[in-house]
Amino acid sequence: MTQNIYDNDAFFSDYSKLPRSVEGLDGAPEWPTLRAMLPAMAGLRVVDLGCGFGWFCRWACAAGAAQVLGLDVSENMLARARETTADKAIAYARVDLERLDLPAGSFDLAYSSLALHYVEGLKPLLENVHRALVPDGRLVFSVEHPLYTAPSRPGWIEDTSGHKTWPLDRYLEEGPRTTDWLAKGVVKRHRTVATHLNHLLASGFTLARVEEWGPTDVQIAQHPAWAAERHRPPFLLVSARRADGVSSTVG
Amino acid sequence: MTQNIYDNDAFFSDYSKLPRSVEGLDGAPEWPTLRAMLPAMAGLRVVDLGCGFGWFCRWACAAGAAQVLGLDVSENMLARARETTADKAIAYARVDLERLDLPAGSFDLAYSSLALHYVEGLKPLLENVHRALVPDGRLVFSVEHPLYTAPSRPGWIEDTSGHKTWPLDRYLEEGPRTTDWLAKGVVKRHRTVATHLNHLLASGFTLARVEEWGPTDVQIAQHPAWAAERHRPPFLLVSARRADGVSSTVG
Repeated sequence: MTQNIYDNDAFFSDYSKLPRSVEGLDGAPEWPTLRAMLPAMAGLRVVDLGCGFGWFCRWACAAGAAQVLGLDVSENMLARARETTADKAIAYARVDLERLDLPAGSFDLAYSSLALHYVEGLKPLLENVHRALVPDGRLVFSVEHPLYTAPSRPGWIEDTSGHKTWPLDRYLEEGPRTTDWLAKGVVKRHRTVATHLNHLLASGFTLARVEEWGPTDVQIAQHPAWAAERHRPPFLLVSARRADGVSSTVG
Repeated sequence: MTQNIYDNDAFFSDYSKLPRSVEGLDGAPEWPTLRAMLPAMAGLRVVDLGCGFGWFCRWACAAGAAQVLGLDVSENMLARARETTADKAIAYARVDLERLDLPAGSFDLAYSSLALHYVEGLKPLLENVHRALVPDGRLVFSVEHPLYTAPSRPGWIEDTSGHKTWPLDRYLEEGPRTTDWLAKGVVKRHRTVATHLNHLLASGFTLARVEEWGPTDVQIAQHPAWAAERHRPPFLLVSARRADGVSSTVG
C-alpha cells in the first residue's frame, strides 16, 4: 500500500493550511495550465485519482460533468470532501491507488493531480485506467516533476550574487525518495519523464500534450519568490488519449 | 543559417579525433539504444539530417536500405563522407537544416543524430519532415538532452566526498546557449523536453518512444568516469511516427 501520509495528523494539519487546501483550485498555480489540457466537461463521466478535499470533483460537476467519482486513500481527506460536497452526482470512495480496479469502459475522463508520484506501481495503474476509459477517452494528470523528485538534497543552492541553481543528481536512478515535507519521512516515487511517457504508450495511450510547468510573468509579478521555479519546473502535466485500433487491445 | 562550426578548421580537427569520429557508430555510447528504436532497414528510403562523416548512411545501406540521402551544412564533413563512401545508393548534399525543403512523401525514415540542437527553427523542420515521410513513416532522432544544454555553467560540481551534482538553472528559458566545446562560442539551441514533444505532436506525429540515455552497467565498468552521466542524462532520444487521418493533413 502507498504510504498514507495524509492520515498522519500533524501532516494533515499543515497540509490543510496550504493555499491549494484553503483556496482550492485557484490556490494551485499550475491549475490554469492543467485546466487548459482538459476536454469540455459537459456530460462526461469522470474519475479523480487522489481527489483530496474534492475541489476538482466539485469543479467538474459545476462545469457539467454527468458523474464524478473521487478516489483517495486518506480517511481525513475523504471526510472533509464529503462534508463540503452537496451534489448527488459526486461520489467518493476510499481506494489504494496501488490496487486500482475500475470497471472497463466506464469513464470518459480520468484526472489526477499530484497523486501519482506516491504510487509505486504506475504501470498497472495506467493499464487499469486505459481499460476503464471509453475509446478516445482522456487521461489528464499532474505529478511532481522528476527534476523536483530526483535529487539527494532537493533544495536551491544560492551563490553570493543571489543566483540559484538546483543540485541535480540521481535523475536516472528511479525508486523511492524520502523527504521531510510537512512531516518527516514522506516517501515519493521518482521516475524519469521518459518512464512516465513510455508507460503511457505501452499501456495503449497516445500522447496529446506535455507541459513542464513554470510560473507565468504575471504570477512572478505577484509572487517574486516563484521566479526560481523557472530554473527547475516543479510539475509535469500530461494529457493522453485512449488509442483505438490495435494498441487499445493491450488493455 | 545555423552556425556552421564544423567548417571551423580548429573545431573540425578536434572533432575528428573524438571516438565517435574515429570509430563511427560503435564509438557513440548511445548508439545501441538509438539503433533499437529504428525500424528494419530493408528496402527503406532514408534521409539523415546532419549526416556528418556518413557513418549512419553507410550502416543503413549495409543493413538493406534502398536509398540513403545524407544532408549536412558542413563542407568538411561532406568531403570526408564522400571520400569514405563507395555505395551508389548513398547520396550526399549540402543543406542548411534551417531551410530544409524535402519533397513530399519521399522517405520511409528520417534520422538525425545530435544535429537538431543546432537548429533554431525546429518546428518548421519537423513540419517539413512530416510532409516528406510516407504515411506511417518514422522519425528517429537524438539531441543533447535539455538538462545538458540548459545551465549557465554546464559543468559538474564535486563536493569534498567526490559526489557530483549538476547545477541546473534556466531550464524553462529556451533560446541560444553559447559554450566553449572544442572551440569558443559554439551556439546550441536550448529547448525543453516538452517543447520537443509538443512540436512533434503539433506537426502531426504520434510519439512511439522516448529515451533519456544514460550509460549501462557494462559501459560504466569499462568507463568508470561515465557513472556521473546517470545523474544528468546527456542525450534525449525520440522515435515518432507520421500519423494518418486528420492530423496528417497538417502537412
